Amino acid sequence: MSTLLTLLYPWVSLLSIILSTITINIVSTTPTYNNNIPRLSAFLRDSKTEPQTLSQDFQIFFFNQTLDHFNYGPESYAIFKQKYVINSKYWGGPNVFSPIFVYFGAESPLDDGQITYSAGIINDNAAHFKALLIYIEHRYYGESIPFGTFDEVMNSVTIRGYFNSAQALADYAEIIVYVKEEFAAQESPVIVFGGSYGGMLASWFRLKYPHIALGALASSAPILNFDGISPENTFPVGVTKDFKEASESCYQAIRNSWFEIDNVASQQNGLSILSQRFKTCSPLGYSYELKNYLEDMYSKAAQYDGPPTYPVTQICSGIDGAPEGTDILGRIFAGVIARIGNTTCYINDIGNPTSQTSGDTNGPQTTDETGVGWGWQVCSEMVTPMGQGSDDTMFQPRPFNATNFINDCKSKYGVTPRPHWVTTYYGGHDIKLVLQRFASNIIFSNGLRDPFSGAGILEDISDTILAIYTAEGSHCLDMVLAQQSDPYWLVNQRQIEIQTIEGWIRKYVADVNAFRK
Amino acid sequence: MSTLLTLLYPWVSLLSIILSTITINIVSTTPTYNNNIPRLSAFLRDSKTEPQTLSQDFQIFFFNQTLDHFNYGPESYAIFKQKYVINSKYWGGPNVFSPIFVYFGAESPLDDGQITYSAGIINDNAAHFKALLIYIEHRYYGESIPFGTFDEVMNSVTIRGYFNSAQALADYAEIIVYVKEEFAAQESPVIVFGGSYGGMLASWFRLKYPHIALGALASSAPILNFDGISPENTFPVGVTKDFKEASESCYQAIRNSWFEIDNVASQQNGLSILSQRFKTCSPLGYSYELKNYLEDMYSKAAQYDGPPTYPVTQICSGIDGAPEGTDILGRIFAGVIARIGNTTCYINDIGNPTSQTSGDTNGPQTTDETGVGWGWQVCSEMVTPMGQGSDDTMFQPRPFNATNFINDCKSKYGVTPRPHWVTTYYGGHDIKLVLQRFASNIIFSNGLRDPFSGAGILEDISDTILAIYTAEGSHCLDMVLAQQSDPYWLVNQRQIEIQTIEGWIRKYVADVNAFRK
Repeated sequence: MSTLLTLLYPWVSLLSIILSTITINIVSTTPTYNNNIPRLSAFLRDSKTEPQTLSQDFQIFFFNQTLDHFNYGPESYAIFKQKYVINSKYWGGPNVFSPIFVYFGAESPLDDGQITYSAGIINDNAAHFKALLIYIEHRYYGESIPFGTFDEVMNSVTIRGYFNSAQALADYAEIIVYVKEEFAAQESPVIVFGGSYGGMLASWFRLKYPHIALGALASSAPILNFDGISPENTFPVGVTKDFKEASESCYQAIRNSWFEIDNVASQQNGLSILSQRFKTCSPLGYSYELKNYLEDMYSKAAQYDGPPTYPVTQICSGIDGAPEGTDILGRIFAGVIARIGNTTCYINDIGNPTSQTSGDTNGPQTTDETGVGWGWQVCSEMVTPMGQGSDDTMFQPRPFNATNFINDCKSKYGVTPRPHWVTTYYGGHDIKLVLQRFASNIIFSNGLRDPFSGAGILEDISDTILAIYTAEGSHCLDMVLAQQSDPYWLVNQRQIEIQTIEGWIRKYVADVNAFRK
Repeated sequence: MSTLLTLLYPWVSLLSIILSTITINIVSTTPTYNNNIPRLSAFLRDSKTEPQTLSQDFQIFFFNQTLDHFNYGPESYAIFKQKYVINSKYWGGPNVFSPIFVYFGAESPLDDGQITYSAGIINDNAAHFKALLIYIEHRYYGESIPFGTFDEVMNSVTIRGYFNSAQALADYAEIIVYVKEEFAAQESPVIVFGGSYGGMLASWFRLKYPHIALGALASSAPILNFDGISPENTFPVGVTKDFKEASESCYQAIRNSWFEIDNVASQQNGLSILSQRFKTCSPLGYSYELKNYLEDMYSKAAQYDGPPTYPVTQICSGIDGAPEGTDILGRIFAGVIARIGNTTCYINDIGNPTSQTSGDTNGPQTTDETGVGWGWQVCSEMVTPMGQGSDDTMFQPRPFNATNFINDCKSKYGVTPRPHWVTTYYGGHDIKLVLQRFASNIIFSNGLRDPFSGAGILEDISDTILAIYTAEGSHCLDMVLAQQSDPYWLVNQRQIEIQTIEGWIRKYVADVNAFRK
């Protein structure tokens, strides 16, 4: 069933650059092999799936949101309309402490597919908990854009400035407080949920607003992906590990392929040869177009290397299964075919390499907003250095170059990234030391096949700040709508998470009752 | 010795209004009997005491501070110079986990008296802990004013907007992180200290930045003084209680005096009669000048009703000790004389009624900055409703009128106060329920004679979030420099606080060592 639904999908740096050139003028129009913009996933909707429409149980609202929560100047009194959605069908009411489950939108529009599928865990458990469900769109995405079109806002140096995580968390706080009042549910326990960037937001929300959220489920949240806490090669090392574990020979083929591609490209008519061998829909202009395409495909395959498709295995079946005597480029192309399927031509959209995929946990339609929006967030606040050395991954060396990164961001946006701000505001260094005697009620869930898990929390911090992960899971897998075909370990992971949340709520109710005595 | 040192002093609403009229043009030039601006104390320096100069152990620095931590627009990249002071004389160095004690400046300039006296507790204990001492001035006060003079900044609707507590906490975070790096003290435990508004900041800092501060001592921090958590009459009820406990007859005389003053004032030449009876230095223009003066004197007396002066007892001695047959106005004036001392005339400065006092825990020189600055903070973010009903205090009825308050602020600053923001951002409602299973290492200290203690935390929240108070103590008394004459209960309170902090540090060191194994 998952082919029909919104899908989790990674967002890779290069795409944002290229998409930026299409949609707004603030970036260079020449796509370059940019080493410096870090990746992060986004929830994106599958272009091939049927559009999901929300049932009447979901009501859409717009909140009069404060533009700037941390300023009392003229801008701060500007308000904009922020979209949120409520499903009260299962709501047990305030008197029985029925919880409120809040899904945090992240770096993409809060569309119907996200609500029905990406936020599946709250939908699946609403009836059991008699929960009120709230889904909130992140500011500056979708229909929650202040004062104009997305392009206009992203071109306004002033309005763009308020597009950041601290403001987004304050938005969530305001809306939750407001909805609780509207439902006379001030005492109802609130649990917040999010995946990837949304998972970081969920965990940070519990840390910053414990008086509003009783607990948080932060799925695949790479909160250590800042300020040098995790090594910069964490992601590509994770990708490499997935391929190596799937097949040593597949891994070797990929590892050796970059040299082969460069070698062919450097010959006369080399790009033509590569275009022919990979049956590209249009001739390659640069060899990096092919290399980026492949790197991106491998990265996403690893990020979403889970059931039912297991795209890493899929690619490696192609590579390993090529007839004996097939050369490296032939094997690599066999991997592409295995992943994409048979079609008349390949790699027709460098900016969106997997839009042709038929894989049921892939195949997103990337949105311009995500590319541009996340590009901005990365260049201002969400500075997540990523790079790889000469011998630590199956990819070519590409160490993170902070100077280039800063200069790129400066030239694009006129701002200097603040690489230390996330750790200053949210913490992250020595996180176990800090949080083992502070805070409570956070689940950090991960699937270890997801390379982002390497920058996540994989060890319990305390009795109530837990790491719940699966060896076989992928990015945000526990968050999505349950399927009949889900493997036992995924069912089990979700069950532990839900039981944990039930425990938080039970303790909370006991506390409230103790106070009332 | 305390006469020679900086003194704790309350800041009462009316003063800020009147002072505002002197220094900036944004407020009305006619002083009115304003009911709506809440009070809050400030640390202010005694005008009569000898100026304190810092020894060479204290080094003054200026940090390049970000104007707006929550925005990536052009203003946010503006930096200003923020003053901080370091004393490393006692510093044991990073290797032995010597702590860093940080004093948070609040709504007044970080002058020498504050450093040496108001922050006394960190000075008194520096040698014992081998602590590094840091004192940080609050943005927009003293020498930490962005881009111009104080008056210029307060007249700039744009720059003024960044004058709020969330930005101030972020300032503290940035400076502490920076100083730790400079001293290679990343692992050194940080304890933050503050009194009154500074105490609120200290407790909120531990809640928002647990990765930067291991613990907080929040002295006389009325963090429940928001959004209707504490009743609006908490402060005047506390003042009344102090007077009633000191002397029932004194309390009755004060309670009856307002009617008498109004009665005389309504007669022909009534203001002249009042001016004569109270020996005012210049003729009274309105009866409320006298009433405000008295209310202010009683309020401050209660707030600082502690050793060695016990100003409430002092005033009541005057009132009760007047010769038999003295009428109510005569008794009230006797109370003024008892508090102020014999002088040629009284009430010569309506805006600063106690500048004549000789009392050694009183007698501040109010600063224009505190009046104007705190007036702004109250009208934007720090909305602390205060009022009194018809029969709940010894004062005349004066219920809080939210509409008037909002209109006043709008007309002064053009902004609408956000009365719910403090509780949305920092919490406060159901604080024990929320924090008993979240957070740790905060001491809320109070002296119960201080009427602000009624809006403070007076019950332990958990094993590590403690209420440490004294029945006989006054506002921020535990924070100030220890004196030979300090009573045993004050010595004891400080000892418990210090032992508690020692326990936090000991546990932290054990945790670090456990991690290193």
